[in-house]
Amino acid sequence: MASLQDISVSAAINILSAIAFLVAFAILRLQPVNDRVYFPKWYLKGIRGSPTRSGGFVSTFVNLDFRTYIRFLNWMPAALRMPEPELIDHAGLDSAAYIRIYLLGLKIFVPITLLSFAVLVPVNWTGETLETIKDVTFSNIDKLSISNVKSGSERFWAHLVMAYVFTFWTFYILYREYKIMTSMRLQFLASEGRRPDQFTVLVRNVPPDPDESVSEHVEHFFCVNHPDYYLTHQVVYNANKLAKLVEKKKSLQNWYIYYQNKYERNPSNKPTTKTGFWGLWGTRVDAIDYYAAEIEKLTDEEQAERERVISDPKAIIPAAFVSFKSRWGAAVCAQTQQTSNPTIWLTEWAPEPRDVYWDNLAIPYVELTIRRLLMAVALFFLTFFFMIPIAFVQSLANIEGIEKVLPFLKPIIERKGTKSLIQGFLPGIALKIFLIFLPTILMIMSKIEGFSSLSSLERRSAGKYHLFVLVNVFLGSIITGTAFQQLKSFLHQAPTEIPKTVGVSIPMKATFFITYIMVDGWAGIAAEILRLVPLVMFHLKNTFLVKTEKDREQAMDPGCLGFATSEPRIQLYFLLGFVYSVITPVLLPFIIVFFAFAYMVFRHQVINVYNQKYESGAAFWPDVQRRLIIGMVISQLLLIGLMSTKDAEISTPFLIVLPILTIWFHMFCKGRFESAFVKFPLQDAMVKDTLERATEPNLNLKAYLHEAYVHPVFKGGELEKPTVIDEEENNPLVPTKRTSRRSSKYGSDVSSEAGI
Amino acid sequence: MASLQDISVSAAINILSAIAFLVAFAILRLQPVNDRVYFPKWYLKGIRGSPTRSGGFVSTFVNLDFRTYIRFLNWMPAALRMPEPELIDHAGLDSAAYIRIYLLGLKIFVPITLLSFAVLVPVNWTGETLETIKDVTFSNIDKLSISNVKSGSERFWAHLVMAYVFTFWTFYILYREYKIMTSMRLQFLASEGRRPDQFTVLVRNVPPDPDESVSEHVEHFFCVNHPDYYLTHQVVYNANKLAKLVEKKKSLQNWYIYYQNKYERNPSNKPTTKTGFWGLWGTRVDAIDYYAAEIEKLTDEEQAERERVISDPKAIIPAAFVSFKSRWGAAVCAQTQQTSNPTIWLTEWAPEPRDVYWDNLAIPYVELTIRRLLMAVALFFLTFFFMIPIAFVQSLANIEGIEKVLPFLKPIIERKGTKSLIQGFLPGIALKIFLIFLPTILMIMSKIEGFSSLSSLERRSAGKYHLFVLVNVFLGSIITGTAFQQLKSFLHQAPTEIPKTVGVSIPMKATFFITYIMVDGWAGIAAEILRLVPLVMFHLKNTFLVKTEKDREQAMDPGCLGFATSEPRIQLYFLLGFVYSVITPVLLPFIIVFFAFAYMVFRHQVINVYNQKYESGAAFWPDVQRRLIIGMVISQLLLIGLMSTKDAEISTPFLIVLPILTIWFHMFCKGRFESAFVKFPLQDAMVKDTLERATEPNLNLKAYLHEAYVHPVFKGGELEKPTVIDEEENNPLVPTKRTSRRSSKYGSDVSSEAGI
Repeated sequence: MASLQDISVSAAINILSAIAFLVAFAILRLQPVNDRVYFPKWYLKGIRGSPTRSGGFVSTFVNLDFRTYIRFLNWMPAALRMPEPELIDHAGLDSAAYIRIYLLGLKIFVPITLLSFAVLVPVNWTGETLETIKDVTFSNIDKLSISNVKSGSERFWAHLVMAYVFTFWTFYILYREYKIMTSMRLQFLASEGRRPDQFTVLVRNVPPDPDESVSEHVEHFFCVNHPDYYLTHQVVYNANKLAKLVEKKKSLQNWYIYYQNKYERNPSNKPTTKTGFWGLWGTRVDAIDYYAAEIEKLTDEEQAERERVISDPKAIIPAAFVSFKSRWGAAVCAQTQQTSNPTIWLTEWAPEPRDVYWDNLAIPYVELTIRRLLMAVALFFLTFFFMIPIAFVQSLANIEGIEKVLPFLKPIIERKGTKSLIQGFLPGIALKIFLIFLPTILMIMSKIEGFSSLSSLERRSAGKYHLFVLVNVFLGSIITGTAFQQLKSFLHQAPTEIPKTVGVSIPMKATFFITYIMVDGWAGIAAEILRLVPLVMFHLKNTFLVKTEKDREQAMDPGCLGFATSEPRIQLYFLLGFVYSVITPVLLPFIIVFFAFAYMVFRHQVINVYNQKYESGAAFWPDVQRRLIIGMVISQLLLIGLMSTKDAEISTPFLIVLPILTIWFHMFCKGRFESAFVKFPLQDAMVKDTLERATEPNLNLKAYLHEAYVHPVFKGGELEKPTVIDEEENNPLVPTKRTSRRSSKYGSDVSSEAGI
Repeated sequence: MASLQDISVSAAINILSAIAFLVAFAILRLQPVNDRVYFPKWYLKGIRGSPTRSGGFVSTFVNLDFRTYIRFLNWMPAALRMPEPELIDHAGLDSAAYIRIYLLGLKIFVPITLLSFAVLVPVNWTGETLETIKDVTFSNIDKLSISNVKSGSERFWAHLVMAYVFTFWTFYILYREYKIMTSMRLQFLASEGRRPDQFTVLVRNVPPDPDESVSEHVEHFFCVNHPDYYLTHQVVYNANKLAKLVEKKKSLQNWYIYYQNKYERNPSNKPTTKTGFWGLWGTRVDAIDYYAAEIEKLTDEEQAERERVISDPKAIIPAAFVSFKSRWGAAVCAQTQQTSNPTIWLTEWAPEPRDVYWDNLAIPYVELTIRRLLMAVALFFLTFFFMIPIAFVQSLANIEGIEKVLPFLKPIIERKGTKSLIQGFLPGIALKIFLIFLPTILMIMSKIEGFSSLSSLERRSAGKYHLFVLVNVFLGSIITGTAFQQLKSFLHQAPTEIPKTVGVSIPMKATFFITYIMVDGWAGIAAEILRLVPLVMFHLKNTFLVKTEKDREQAMDPGCLGFATSEPRIQLYFLLGFVYSVITPVLLPFIIVFFAFAYMVFRHQVINVYNQKYESGAAFWPDVQRRLIIGMVISQLLLIGLMSTKDAEISTPFLIVLPILTIWFHMFCKGRFESAFVKFPLQDAMVKDTLERATEPNLNLKAYLHEAYVHPVFKGGELEKPTVIDEEENNPLVPTKRTSRRSSKYGSDVSSEAGI
């Protein structure tokens, strides 16, 4: 068990490294040359141009105005200054909602911390149990925890009452937050301008028809079954191969520009390259000529593929984006079942055009269920067998473990400073490294599961990651950290014993988690703001690839909020807060510092840096809420387990009410709010339709929607419209006003503007 | 443990009682006087009139044609003769689907039985383990079970392979059955005539409006949000008090008629009654005058209440039946969300008018969630604490238990015949008696949960009852039957140990369940066909209350299929079949006999007796499927438990695949078929609409729907139409063709015809 001194050393290291990051950030961000790394969002918005100050050559790269360095922390108030509505306008609701998760943490835990320091800390401190036991080493931190209360003591009533108070406080805040978020989302959707996805429904699993093409079949089906509302549709091409060619061409072009730049700077030395893999072997050729030839070859290939996709009926996959004349019509189609066979003609709201994940649109139902089964099994194995390496590394990170494996290090380790360093630092780092590998694997798994939008992929990955964090970081640390040997016995234990086993270890692991919070939460967040990797990448690209202003634009990597990984990590802090709020309240201030610091940092990043790839309108909030509830239930079960080992079994019936209430609260909130995040109510659709009809009676919606849902590789007008649809235009099967509308010229400009 | 002889005695008793019931039925059903008890369905259909044969007075009561007695079993082929489409036409899809459950049992278990007798019985029989153990008493039945195979034997591979074969066979049959049932349902819905519920949506939780009445509010809301489809609506009155008065009046009228009949038969003695409770005390008065006065008083009261309900705006509850111009419009409204607040304006398909449970239409959202929480907790306590009395009774039903409690009975019990009787009969009876109390409680609980149709109430009750049967009959019998003392230790055991503990007891309980099947399944079903209670009730009513032909019609109590209780009971047989198919195959023939016999009996009853209260179109099938899957998973887990105690742990990884596959299969089927039972696809709606528009262009739908959803106590034209709607008629807010349609005369006759 780490002593107070270990904690202090660790705190000092982490605070120092956090400050170092912040100082480095403060200096770097003021240099004009880094402007595009630290303020890319403003460039993308077109508000900020390249830094061309007066004052000579040097000052375009280095900031020589020393007065600005004095106020090196002034980004913090600046980050907090922008009011929320403006933030939503500036960065979208997704980002604003994401930042609110940190704020939610503060709202929940600040009062809980105050209360538990006022009530539980004195109760624990005067428990005086640890001092009476001889053979246990303990620190002052343990004296503040529930361990210091005698078994079977009356004092546990305080903890029990506090568990109730904390739970109800959390209910109140969660309910309020869900309500606010719901109204924010509805307001956001209501105030949104016209967007193609409001009128469009994604239809999947179009059944094959022997007599008709997919496009005809879709047209006929919706003309018959939504006669008054169907407007047009867009078939989906299987352009995955084409997209790959385009991608490859882009990379070749990068190399081409790189060598051209090199040649221009040093015309005496014509650059050469080898034709083999990564330019490492093969015959040596002139680089510029080689890449020019390669690009030309690829351009031809791309052109051929492009023509094949457009002309080959087999390249059309059995899915389509169907657009309606009104939002009402689209809302109806998205929410209803079309045919008696629920595995064909599946309709759902079309994602935003930039949110579509094109590769997954053509998976038939049976394949989809099999994929999900396989991924569920794979996730199980990934989650439960990844545990073994972590446990192994952590057992090494024990002083005794290291000494045993590497006995020659003993003299170094035994020195006091080193010992504190290792015990305070290593376990956190080991975990952190493991976690870096994971998100990509999980995202691939989600992609295999066949979801059709990036936002849903991210949400699914977040769910998987959360499970992983729960099992491996939280449970894994608690069980294996104390004794790797416990793992085996634990696997053979009954599930009801888990709360007990874990509950008993919980108070002992407080110091470990404090260290973890400081490494991951404090220093990690400070590193986030520094953006080391994008900084280096930008300068590399800027040096070697950038020729025009547009290239420089593309060299910027603003990045985005990684919901799939960072949200489950926040959930870990919530979980720790819930678990330790009753058991070891001294952990709470560390969590509060994390939430406050992260809130500021991410607010700054959202305002100045990140550029979201899509906007889902905070569709992830139900997931956040659900995971918070899971955290609460886990903390309540662990408290029951801990209490029952403390000879306080009488508390079990009182405590068992808490998880039941929590689950009920969850269902209540779910019923009350969730559908606002899933469905689009008809009333709102009708209001927007009516308004639009009144304000823009001559809108040519068909032209507006014309190119909205075209695969990105076709963007640029190269795609011919299939002739079939034009034939249908004159088909009197279902009379529409479309022909008269087509004469209007309003439209396609708007689509490209709103499409991004 | 019961020996083969005990089983034979029990079998003899049960077969004899079953035959006795059948013979009694065969004789009674041929008596003309019982015709209305055994063929009420034909009377209700108007096909059969009162038996007025020529041949004197006696032959109207007793059948003197002795030739008919010879063919006393000829109802059996008659029951099987009616083809299924005719059966659906005659008795509805609910009944036809219900009978198919028994047929499903045959389809699953006949091949399984053949295979397990061919493979597993020889494997077990030659296991020769039980003979080597000295201190265990065993019967020949145990020699056929898995107990006779040596621990760790290679023979378990046979059981493992068979478990797979049985599982896949069941998958195949279940998938096929679900598919057939889905198409049957769709066909049924498609071929159905025009019905009010096709056009109507039940709207609940209409929010209060300070300026408008509920009726106006509903009208406005749907005129605005479904402008092209809204037709009319029917507000719901809180007529619960009125319904009670009507009910009370009916009972008083029965007494009045009873005394009048009595007086007419014996004019010398004027009947008197006492005014107190149930006529047991109080002052003695003239019965006919007393009841006449009471009825008159109640008629006035009823009239006053009726007027109050119609005129008082507070008697209108915030719910309404909203009708649309087309099925398409109704399907859209039922499946979509109306407003951004998902707890108001809740829309769902209106149940059939006779299926509506009127009392539950006005429960607000918060109250509903609290009610469900309370009922979930109550169900838990009911399920797990009801177990104690059963265990107590069953421990008494042990020979040793009885001898201990009532030592003076020892000499009687020890006699061989009595011993067999007690051991074979009592445990089954004890269970049976307990189960009689339950369904009413569960139905009340479901009503408190606030479902709005009788069919959903029945489905919910069935779910509760299934849980109860699982825990108390199945698990309860296995654990407490062998040793009441085990119960306590069992409660303190870890959940993972349950499959082991239960698995070990399973083979030993085979004989108990064989007895149970014979008592409940054989004799019980035979008693069902005899209809003793309705027989007695009919003759009592016929003697004392019946004056006119119409009274006699009302005295008939055809009853109906009690889905809420009988379906979970069938599930128990399925569960037993799944569990024992691998472990003790000798139990399977008993189950097959049950399924075959019950199939015949219920087919007869459905054709000749039962009169369903409502028709849900086999909406319960997904529940049936789900519970079958639960049974399969339980059986697979128990097999794992049993195998792991048999030193065959190596089989666990192979067997663990089965429950995973089963759950996956469930999700697959759910996705594939379930929505056909929940939603109404737009395509089907459109087809019916188009057809109707073509065949009956002048249909006055509004008149047709006018009185469809009026509370039954108002049926009979006494309800005035609220004036509000008439005002709205002329409101030009949304122009409709309703006024022109109103002139047509077609309609209200049809409604009363189709309403029942």
